[in-house]
Amino acid sequence: MPTVLHETADQVLTLTLNRPEALNALTPDQREEIIHLLSRASATPDIRAVVITGTGRGFCAGADLRGAATTAERTAGDVARTLRTGAQRLIAAVLDCEKPVIASVNGTAAGLGAHLALACDLVLAAESAKFIEVFVRRGLIPDGGGAYLLPRLIGPQRAKELMFFGDALTATQAEHLGLINRVIPDTDLSHTTQSWAERLATAPTRALALTKQLVNASLDTDRATAFAAEAAAQEINMTTADAREGIRSFAERRKATYEGR
Amino acid sequence: MPTVLHETADQVLTLTLNRPEALNALTPDQREEIIHLLSRASATPDIRAVVITGTGRGFCAGADLRGAATTAERTAGDVARTLRTGAQRLIAAVLDCEKPVIASVNGTAAGLGAHLALACDLVLAAESAKFIEVFVRRGLIPDGGGAYLLPRLIGPQRAKELMFFGDALTATQAEHLGLINRVIPDTDLSHTTQSWAERLATAPTRALALTKQLVNASLDTDRATAFAAEAAAQEINMTTADAREGIRSFAERRKATYEGR
Amino acid sequence: MPTVLHETADQVLTLTLNRPEALNALTPDQREEIIHLLSRASATPDIRAVVITGTGRGFCAGADLRGAATTAERTAGDVARTLRTGAQRLIAAVLDCEKPVIASVNGTAAGLGAHLALACDLVLAAESAKFIEVFVRRGLIPDGGGAYLLPRLIGPQRAKELMFFGDALTATQAEHLGLINRVIPDTDLSHTTQSWAERLATAPTRALALTKQLVNASLDTDRATAFAAEAAAQEINMTTADAREGIRSFAERRKATYEGR
Repeated sequence: MPTVLHETADQVLTLTLNRPEALNALTPDQREEIIHLLSRASATPDIRAVVITGTGRGFCAGADLRGAATTAERTAGDVARTLRTGAQRLIAAVLDCEKPVIASVNGTAAGLGAHLALACDLVLAAESAKFIEVFVRRGLIPDGGGAYLLPRLIGPQRAKELMFFGDALTATQAEHLGLINRVIPDTDLSHTTQSWAERLATAPTRALALTKQLVNASLDTDRATAFAAEAAAQEINMTTADAREGIRSFAERRKATYEGR
Repeated sequence: MPTVLHETADQVLTLTLNRPEALNALTPDQREEIIHLLSRASATPDIRAVVITGTGRGFCAGADLRGAATTAERTAGDVARTLRTGAQRLIAAVLDCEKPVIASVNGTAAGLGAHLALACDLVLAAESAKFIEVFVRRGLIPDGGGAYLLPRLIGPQRAKELMFFGDALTATQAEHLGLINRVIPDTDLSHTTQSWAERLATAPTRALALTKQLVNASLDTDRATAFAAEAAAQEINMTTADAREGIRSFAERRKATYEGR
Repeated sequence: MPTVLHETADQVLTLTLNRPEALNALTPDQREEIIHLLSRASATPDIRAVVITGTGRGFCAGADLRGAATTAERTAGDVARTLRTGAQRLIAAVLDCEKPVIASVNGTAAGLGAHLALACDLVLAAESAKFIEVFVRRGLIPDGGGAYLLPRLIGPQRAKELMFFGDALTATQAEHLGLINRVIPDTDLSHTTQSWAERLATAPTRALALTKQLVNASLDTDRATAFAAEAAAQEINMTTADAREGIRSFAERRKATYEGR
C-alpha cells in the first residue's frame, strides 16, 4: 500500500496519510510525496480544492525520527539544514499551494503533524481529535513553523502556553481558542469535509488563490504593502473568466457558475 | 436629499449613508464625500468623535458597480488604479482619521461596506445586522483592505473561512469571532452608539488620536519601531492641555475635564 | 522591608512587589530592581522559571508619578527619554528574560502594571483582579508597550476599546477576551501559580528560552525571517543536554528528566 493515498473526485484532491500503525508519523518519503502532490495541484486546472487527512486513529504524529542523524553524526549546520529542506518546506508547500487546502483532522495531530494541520487554510477536526505541541516533551523547540503559525492564530500568550507545556488539547478546546475552524462529530467529519471541499471546488479558483496569498501575507507586512498587493491581485483576477462571470451574473441577477479559470 | 447626511451634535459628527433604496451601496460621490468629511473632522477641534451609520435596512451594500468600466473598456492598470484611488483611499481615510470613529452597523454590511465598518476603531452592530464578505460570490477578491483588516481582527484561518465562502455572518456570530466590539438590540443601537460617542467626545482627544495611530501601526511593525513611536507620541501628547489637566486632576484627586486640546 | 521581595525555591524565582499601601505603584527603584533581578535570572542556571506577583490588594497600580518632572521642569526629549529608559526598559526586560515568566495577578493591574502583567509569557489572574488601561483617564497615551502588546493579544479593535475608555476589566472578562491565560479563584491563585511554575522549572530550559524568543518575534516579522530564526534556534537547542535527553528518553519510551542545560 502507498503511504500517501491520493485521489481526485469532483475536482477535489484528497491526500490521505496512510501509516495508521505509526499514527501517521511522517517519513521523509511521505513528506516529499505531499510536497509533490501539492505542487502538482497548484498547476492542475482540474484540481480546485485539496483535503489532507489520515487513516486510522491519528492524523499525523509528527516527523518520524527513525533514521535521523544522531548527535555524533551531525556536523555544524545539519540541524538547520534538515529543517529548512524538510519540515519548513512541507509547511511552505501547504501555505503556498494555489488551491485551498482543508485539514480534516481525524485524530491526533502532534508536533509537525499539528503544524501541518494549522498551515492549512481551513481546519476541521473530529471531536476525538487532539492537538499536541509535543516538542517540549522531547527537549525540542516547536519546528515546522509553529512559532510562526500559532501566534497568528491565537496570539503569543496562548501559543506559549501550548508550547511550554506540550499538553494535549481537545478539538473542542482548540475551537474555543480559535485554533481551528470547527469541531465536528467523528461520524460526520468525512461528510462535512466533502461538502466544504465541494463548495470550494465550485468557487472562482483564481480568486481564492489570490485571496489566500493576500491573507497569508497580511500579518507579515504593513498597510502600504498589503494595499499594493491587493490592487495587483484584483488586476490579475479581473483577467479571469470567473471574474467576468461573477460580474455578469450579478448584473443578470442569476447564480454564477465558476469554471475555475 | 443628500446621499450622505452629516450633522454635529455634542462634538460628535454623525455621517449617515442615505441611499436606503440601494441598501446604501456606495457611489463614487458618496465615497468622496465621506473622505472629505473625515479629513475635515481631523482638522476641526469641535469634532471629537465620528459615527458612521446608514439609513434603512442596510449599513452599506458595498461599492455601487453601476457605471464601472466594463472589461472591454479597461486598459492595463485600470483595476489597480481604481482600487488605489477609490476603495483603498476610503479605508485609509477611516484608519487615518484623527478622531475616533465608531461604526454603528444598522443592517447588512457587505463587501466594501463590511470593510468600511471593520476599519472603524469601534464597531457596534444591531442584532439584525449581517456581515458578508460577498466578493467571492461575484468572482472577486476581497478589496478595500479586507485581507489587511480581517487577519488582524480574527486571524488568517477564520478570515479565509469568511472570504472563501462569502456567507452572511450574523452580528452575534461576528461578536463571538471577535470581529466587532458589541452586538446591541436593534432598538438600542442608536442610543448605545450615542453614549459611546459622547464618552469619546469628552476624552483627551489628542491622546486618543495618538493611541489610534499606535494601535493601527502595531501589527505593521516590530517592537523597536513601536517603542520609538510610543515615546514620540507621549512626548507630543505631553504638550497638550489635556495631559496637564489629566495629571493635575489625578494629583488633586478630582475628575478630569478634557477640552480636547 | 524591601519593596521588591525575591526568593528562589525549587528553581522558581518569585518577585513580589511589596508596597501594598500604594497598591504597588512602581517606583523607579523598584523598576530597576526588577530589571536587575530578571537579568540575573537569565544568567543563573538554578533559576528556571520566574513569577511576578504583588502583596496586598493590588498587583501593580502603574508607575508611581510622585517625583516625576513637572511640565515646567521638562526640556525637549525628556518625556520620550524617560519612557525609553524607564517603562519600556522594564517591559523589554520581561520580554527578553531567558526564563519563562508568569504573572500571578493578585489584584488590580493598572496602567504600566497591566502592561507588566501582559508582557509576561503566561498570565494567571485571581478572580478579583482587574485590568485597567488607566492612561486615558489621566490624559495620557498607554505607555510601556501597551499599543505593542494588546493588539497582538486581542486585536486592534478590542485594544482600542480598552484604551479609549479606560474602564476596569474583570479577570473573567479578560480571560473571555483572550487577554490572559486563566482566571483562578482567589484562594487558589498562589497554589496554581506554583504548580505552573514548577512544571516550567522542570522543562528543558534552553528550549523554552528559544521558543519564547521565536514567539515574541513572530508578529514582528515575516515567514522567511521566522523560518530562518527557527532553524537557527533548533540548531542551538540541539547542543543542549536536555535535547539529547529528550530524544533519548523518547527512543527509550521513558519520561525525560531535564536538568535545564
